[in-house]
Amino acid sequence: MALLDSDRLFPVEPGVRNIARGLYEGVKDLPIISPHGHTDPRWFAENNPFPDPAQLFVTPDHYVFRMLCSQGIKLENLGVPRADGGWTETDGRKIWRIFASNYHLFRATPSRMWLDHAFQDVFGLTKRLSAETADETYDHIADCLQRPEFRPRALFERFGIEVIATTEGALDDLKWHRMIRESGWKGRVVTAYRPDQAVDPEYAGFTETVEKLGELCGTDTTTWSGYLEAHRIRRAYFKEQGGATSSDHGHATARTENLSEAEAAHLFDKALRGVCTAEEADAFRGQMLTEMARMSIDDGLVMQIHAGSSRNHSGAVLSTFGRDKGFDIPSRTDYVRSLKPLLDAVGMRDDVSIIAFTLDETTYSRELAPLAGVYPALKLGPAWWFFDSPEGMMRYRQQVTETAGFYNTVGFNDDTRAFCSIPARHDVARRVDCAYLAHLVATGRLDEDEAGEVAYDLTYRLAKQAYRL
Amino acid sequence: MALLDSDRLFPVEPGVRNIARGLYEGVKDLPIISPHGHTDPRWFAENNPFPDPAQLFVTPDHYVFRMLCSQGIKLENLGVPRADGGWTETDGRKIWRIFASNYHLFRATPSRMWLDHAFQDVFGLTKRLSAETADETYDHIADCLQRPEFRPRALFERFGIEVIATTEGALDDLKWHRMIRESGWKGRVVTAYRPDQAVDPEYAGFTETVEKLGELCGTDTTTWSGYLEAHRIRRAYFKEQGGATSSDHGHATARTENLSEAEAAHLFDKALRGVCTAEEADAFRGQMLTEMARMSIDDGLVMQIHAGSSRNHSGAVLSTFGRDKGFDIPSRTDYVRSLKPLLDAVGMRDDVSIIAFTLDETTYSRELAPLAGVYPALKLGPAWWFFDSPEGMMRYRQQVTETAGFYNTVGFNDDTRAFCSIPARHDVARRVDCAYLAHLVATGRLDEDEAGEVAYDLTYRLAKQAYRL
Amino acid sequence: MALLDSDRLFPVEPGVRNIARGLYEGVKDLPIISPHGHTDPRWFAENNPFPDPAQLFVTPDHYVFRMLCSQGIKLENLGVPRADGGWTETDGRKIWRIFASNYHLFRATPSRMWLDHAFQDVFGLTKRLSAETADETYDHIADCLQRPEFRPRALFERFGIEVIATTEGALDDLKWHRMIRESGWKGRVVTAYRPDQAVDPEYAGFTETVEKLGELCGTDTTTWSGYLEAHRIRRAYFKEQGGATSSDHGHATARTENLSEAEAAHLFDKALRGVCTAEEADAFRGQMLTEMARMSIDDGLVMQIHAGSSRNHSGAVLSTFGRDKGFDIPSRTDYVRSLKPLLDAVGMRDDVSIIAFTLDETTYSRELAPLAGVYPALKLGPAWWFFDSPEGMMRYRQQVTETAGFYNTVGFNDDTRAFCSIPARHDVARRVDCAYLAHLVATGRLDEDEAGEVAYDLTYRLAKQAYRL
Repeated sequence: MALLDSDRLFPVEPGVRNIARGLYEGVKDLPIISPHGHTDPRWFAENNPFPDPAQLFVTPDHYVFRMLCSQGIKLENLGVPRADGGWTETDGRKIWRIFASNYHLFRATPSRMWLDHAFQDVFGLTKRLSAETADETYDHIADCLQRPEFRPRALFERFGIEVIATTEGALDDLKWHRMIRESGWKGRVVTAYRPDQAVDPEYAGFTETVEKLGELCGTDTTTWSGYLEAHRIRRAYFKEQGGATSSDHGHATARTENLSEAEAAHLFDKALRGVCTAEEADAFRGQMLTEMARMSIDDGLVMQIHAGSSRNHSGAVLSTFGRDKGFDIPSRTDYVRSLKPLLDAVGMRDDVSIIAFTLDETTYSRELAPLAGVYPALKLGPAWWFFDSPEGMMRYRQQVTETAGFYNTVGFNDDTRAFCSIPARHDVARRVDCAYLAHLVATGRLDEDEAGEVAYDLTYRLAKQAYRL
Repeated sequence: MALLDSDRLFPVEPGVRNIARGLYEGVKDLPIISPHGHTDPRWFAENNPFPDPAQLFVTPDHYVFRMLCSQGIKLENLGVPRADGGWTETDGRKIWRIFASNYHLFRATPSRMWLDHAFQDVFGLTKRLSAETADETYDHIADCLQRPEFRPRALFERFGIEVIATTEGALDDLKWHRMIRESGWKGRVVTAYRPDQAVDPEYAGFTETVEKLGELCGTDTTTWSGYLEAHRIRRAYFKEQGGATSSDHGHATARTENLSEAEAAHLFDKALRGVCTAEEADAFRGQMLTEMARMSIDDGLVMQIHAGSSRNHSGAVLSTFGRDKGFDIPSRTDYVRSLKPLLDAVGMRDDVSIIAFTLDETTYSRELAPLAGVYPALKLGPAWWFFDSPEGMMRYRQQVTETAGFYNTVGFNDDTRAFCSIPARHDVARRVDCAYLAHLVATGRLDEDEAGEVAYDLTYRLAKQAYRL
Repeated sequence: MALLDSDRLFPVEPGVRNIARGLYEGVKDLPIISPHGHTDPRWFAENNPFPDPAQLFVTPDHYVFRMLCSQGIKLENLGVPRADGGWTETDGRKIWRIFASNYHLFRATPSRMWLDHAFQDVFGLTKRLSAETADETYDHIADCLQRPEFRPRALFERFGIEVIATTEGALDDLKWHRMIRESGWKGRVVTAYRPDQAVDPEYAGFTETVEKLGELCGTDTTTWSGYLEAHRIRRAYFKEQGGATSSDHGHATARTENLSEAEAAHLFDKALRGVCTAEEADAFRGQMLTEMARMSIDDGLVMQIHAGSSRNHSGAVLSTFGRDKGFDIPSRTDYVRSLKPLLDAVGMRDDVSIIAFTLDETTYSRELAPLAGVYPALKLGPAWWFFDSPEGMMRYRQQVTETAGFYNTVGFNDDTRAFCSIPARHDVARRVDCAYLAHLVATGRLDEDEAGEVAYDLTYRLAKQAYRL
């Protein structure tokens, strides 16, 4: 018995399925380029075994625990740590049993496919997870995790990862990246500069963060120019010490601004003093996107804008469990007006690369494909987050390609902290892209030789090129 | 000749069609659970024959007469009653001829499939409706309607309805429901508490409605606390006298509020005095949703929110013909911000159930699936109104399932006053769900045994469970 | 070798493909009705040869040069004229080589299919365009263009165009249309009244345009009534001198107003004096839509509203190259509120026809299909601009038909200035419609005889009828 259908996600019509199989055959074993994600560099630095199955698959994966939560299971019982240090379950087996007993909740979700892929391909399991198989599955995975071939570096190599990017905050010392590099291990793990905490006046501790930034860089970050200089210094540090080729910016909206220096300095001053209105904070974040784009021209870091998540929707969950607990909800996002100041500033340049992501699928065909399909500086990131799914990816291709083509997109990225899901996620992307391409071939919209070339580009070349990896 | 293809709505690829057929075979004869709709309890109480074919199929069905209206046919000529009592056609045969002559307008609409289903399965007709067949069809149906097996209760039983919910306003005396219960007939017809008239300061006659509510309940509804108490009393009455298991709330927006008691009381006072601004009226409606959710915790009524219809778009039609004349138009609806006050108040509880519906399909994947996929209190209602259609239902599954799964949805409901369309509508839903599930099986996203279980759940179990029926 | 698959765009399942083929067979050779577009009447008046291949296919086609621009190719190098008269490439062969070398950028875009269609069907080419084939292709097309059978009138006839509409501004003297008529040539080329420059206070030179309008018409356009009268006179002129059957209105939003005469006159006065706020200018444009609708009742011109393009997004491109350079980006558009004043004024009439277009696909199912599916005066235009594409058209049918049916839509229009793409565009529309209809037949939603009738209607009859051609 197998958990996975070898033809999964391919078109159902036999002739088209055959085309898809052929295309997939050509890309399935290509190395993984993972230019944006949230794995922990410490794993690869220390190379310690992963702890128990629950801590590998349940507790850190917000896709998993949010679904369980939606059916009334308490986050405490899933081992999700409380911000106040209150009790949460620590017995991995108990957590695993809850997870296994509720595995039907994941039917037809991407999590189910990622999990089954990891269970089968990484751990060699063949029985569907359920209350009945909970204990044997737990024991099997727990045993595996003790073996050297399941340590982080071994899995990294087994997964065929050519390069993976992590994401670190502006103040991070990058010691794990340094440790990886100095270890002599050949795996390529690079960082990305994610300065949200240091550019968002509404982020808890903004003023202290900026102060520390100044200390780290030896600049006077109480002034606008010193503050910008500190970012430049940190970006250089991330490039040199962590191999960064990109920055990443997670903002609630896609707003950008292109203010005069005096206006920007004035806003910064208010931000530092904690007296920004919500509108001013938003304008300041928008200004910082344009500033970062200008720095990109100088230092070559590719700029990613991840906009449109309404973070921490539940006040109660935020106060009890903190951020990133599955309560970040997409919201309507405007790009046409929001990106105009940034694009007026740098959009016609071909020496800067800005990759936009969205959680508002209505903008694919209406805004982002038309914008990416004309501005040289703008590229469109892959289907993101809830849309990193078979249907989501297919909608992305169907809504983006006709206006922006393939070559204003940047390949796939997994954007995950769930390490074992990485090969599964890339495999899903490859399959969906091949299914889409096969359909184009079968309907006379693309020649088969071109489809093979595009499949290679979407799988491998575009990500390397767009992220300068 | 048949009006209906026995494989209708199934996938076209033969292998997948076979899977769909098998799944459908397992659910097609399951009883109908109709937890939300607008049939008239008087039908089942009195069990009188339905009047002529036009009054059964044309005059009361806004899907039908709105389409005819769009091509320039006057509502008067279709027998739609005028609010001012002016002339409208009363000759059923004349109305039927207009309808039949324009039957091509309904090509590829769900109305066409519902009508053909009723014509064939309920009335045994086999010829397509047209100008040519108008008279014979009319005569045939008119004859049937005189026979005992076409009376409301007989049809109810023939349709395999296990339970049906009607909807009554807060002031309704539920006499028809009482009469049904006291008649000894076994058919289960329950009511639902729909207090829009008594919670919307902008509804015509709001102040009088609230006054009557006080008289009915013996409470002082000129005070905020007395007004809330009156709602509690009516909800209890609807449970006891009408078997209600749910309340229903049709609001123009999804706005909710969680105001202090003093603020709420102040708004209520302005509402009673008819001096609310539009903004205050909207806030008051939003507050009442949260109040109703709190009452649900106490009395167990499931709460339905039907948001996003811009009612009575044409001023002329409203003044001539009144409400519900096909001029209610969906509009852009926000759920992420709007539901936050309500969800902050009760969203993390597992002892209250709130079912959200939308007419803005963009919110499926962006807002509602992510919200229902994490908040224990929130479930997602089926594709509603214009989207209660094959394409609409398929989009719903494709956009909702990957994030919310199947088990944060609540099965199908027909939401109709067109009695003969009920088996047709449930059949369409079953077929589309089986088609969707078959596609998941064929693309390796769901095992076939699981698909069978899900088909049963979507058809029968989830509706019973979600509505506590 | 062929550039085109004869079964392109048909469904992939063999049985359904056969149905589609049959339907297509019935419509593929029907004459082209092109009721809305932007070809140059001068071509048909003078009947001069088209210049070189680059000036035929690249330089005037914003779909083509915007895609090249998005990959960093300078508009100057593509021969796009600069507003300031600065240098741009004039060597057609050089432009063509850039285009050919980047032909892979158009993979899976509609441009690719239109171009291949023109290359094969119009020019008899069989090799895929590429850097290698650039020169031979250029030479071949250039040679053809010198031959009489490639002159505008010959192509018009060869394309099977029964009638084509161009678009002229309010001040246009229609001399080319007169010249066509007086030439004795049988080709039917009509104009459409496009008064944007004369109704938009924010259009450069508005006051002068209105002044000239007065001079042309002999009315005092400094008064509101004189200004309206001038429009009436010009509309009559367009009917008589250019055969116009429609007006066309390209507005950034769908806003309409129905102001009192005094309010409208006051706004007009401010507009003339150049002192409108942005809000007032928008209101004035909205008022003019309602005025134009009223004029339509009198003179019978069909009214088209093309709303929702955020024009000239890049300030730099606007100032360097001027308008219509591929930087018009769709934006979110509301129809439910925006059209209400207009629809309250004339929506229930059956003696006026208003055709709405959108660039915001979310409005298809949520707003436009429900509105067009009930208001007699309102029809829905075909998928527009970026959505004039296989996927875009299919989404249009899938999202519109169930609520508005087929008969509240108006057939296809090509909306293009790229003459050689006209047969290609109509062919794509016919194929996609047949594919959609075949799928309805195969899933039991439409009988095959009805599908044939609908295919004819969508291809030919509806456009003629809706545009009164």
